[in-house]
Amino acid sequence: MPVKVIAFDADDTLWVNEPYFQETENKFCALLEDYIPHHTVSQELFKTEIANLSLYGYGVKGFMLSMIETALTVSSKTISLDVIEKTIAYGKELLEKPIELLDGVEHVLSSLTNKYRLVVATKGDLLDQERKLKKSGLEHYFHHIEIMSEKHTSDYSKLIKHLDIDPSEFLMIGNSLKSDILPVLQLGGHAIHIPYHTTWAHEKVENKVEHANFKQVAGMAEILAFV
Amino acid sequence: MPVKVIAFDADDTLWVNEPYFQETENKFCALLEDYIPHHTVSQELFKTEIANLSLYGYGVKGFMLSMIETALTVSSKTISLDVIEKTIAYGKELLEKPIELLDGVEHVLSSLTNKYRLVVATKGDLLDQERKLKKSGLEHYFHHIEIMSEKHTSDYSKLIKHLDIDPSEFLMIGNSLKSDILPVLQLGGHAIHIPYHTTWAHEKVENKVEHANFKQVAGMAEILAFV
Repeated sequence: MPVKVIAFDADDTLWVNEPYFQETENKFCALLEDYIPHHTVSQELFKTEIANLSLYGYGVKGFMLSMIETALTVSSKTISLDVIEKTIAYGKELLEKPIELLDGVEHVLSSLTNKYRLVVATKGDLLDQERKLKKSGLEHYFHHIEIMSEKHTSDYSKLIKHLDIDPSEFLMIGNSLKSDILPVLQLGGHAIHIPYHTTWAHEKVENKVEHANFKQVAGMAEILAFV
Repeated sequence: MPVKVIAFDADDTLWVNEPYFQETENKFCALLEDYIPHHTVSQELFKTEIANLSLYGYGVKGFMLSMIETALTVSSKTISLDVIEKTIAYGKELLEKPIELLDGVEHVLSSLTNKYRLVVATKGDLLDQERKLKKSGLEHYFHHIEIMSEKHTSDYSKLIKHLDIDPSEFLMIGNSLKSDILPVLQLGGHAIHIPYHTTWAHEKVENKVEHANFKQVAGMAEILAFV
């Protein structure tokens, strides 16, 4: 069946995200450099984030809480409270970052908006993702925004049911093979992967994907050749 | 037009919530009692929460971050790091609280589920509210759960449009006049208020509501008389 709904991942597909997280993490690690090497803090932070993921979910607020927890752990509670104060300030800055659209996004959306039902399907904090969409100026292109606590096969299944379409009428576009591509292909949907130059360790997969419903392109503008 | 969709607020309408937040706040204030009186901490925390609300939104993670920020402020950064560690632990406990259904909820939902489309319309953190609904055992009664970053008139307007009904076919049931009742009445919808014995200061309104589409009942079981 022909595609009816095109869903776009948001972070690092429509706009810059991971580099901002990495910038924040770097500043956080620098705060603790007197106590422990940058690389060790970074590793501990990742472990803490993963340990907290099932409780906090994705998004900046959980990241902030995990940074604070990491600061306590790696320093054995010897850091100054200035570190905590600065960590909170860095997190708030991250929440208020401007939105920087990726190349070709606006052109692609305006070309597709009258031919397909376009939706955003993203993880993260509810208010934060809504705010980013509003700040992006892209809101009017989308039928709705779906903020998902996870992007597993069952979550896409629910979304597709909610959209009232067959999986084969669904196309997902995103930068994460693990979250945007593999679960959709498994359901019989279509998927286009646009790799981003940097990916959060948790989203990395080793697989090479080969599938009739799968395409990989170098940038957003190239998807117009396939839809 | 007759009501087609009944939406239920979740926290303090379907299950206990605010008493758990208050319990956490009390434990947090007790941690700081050596520095500053309980009442003052409580006031400062409320101020911090409200100041952060537009950035963090509703929910436990923002509450945790606001408690940590308050601990730094009220102590002028003189507290021990144990306070921060315990605050994070209290927040995690709050996220893992069991779900305690309010009286009559299960009976009312099972009576209504075949006659109306039932939805949950709640504020808070996405993952947290999804988890609470799952833990409640009530998930199967609901067509879907709508987690809203705000409950203003415009948010209900979007929800009602999404449900593809007329506002007059929408009935909202909840414990907050400000969030569950007034905006829905303004749109021409119906609303039933079930006051809860305790309300977060931010949700309090002084108004006495009088409106043809409005009812107030003492407990969940009583709504069956009106639908």
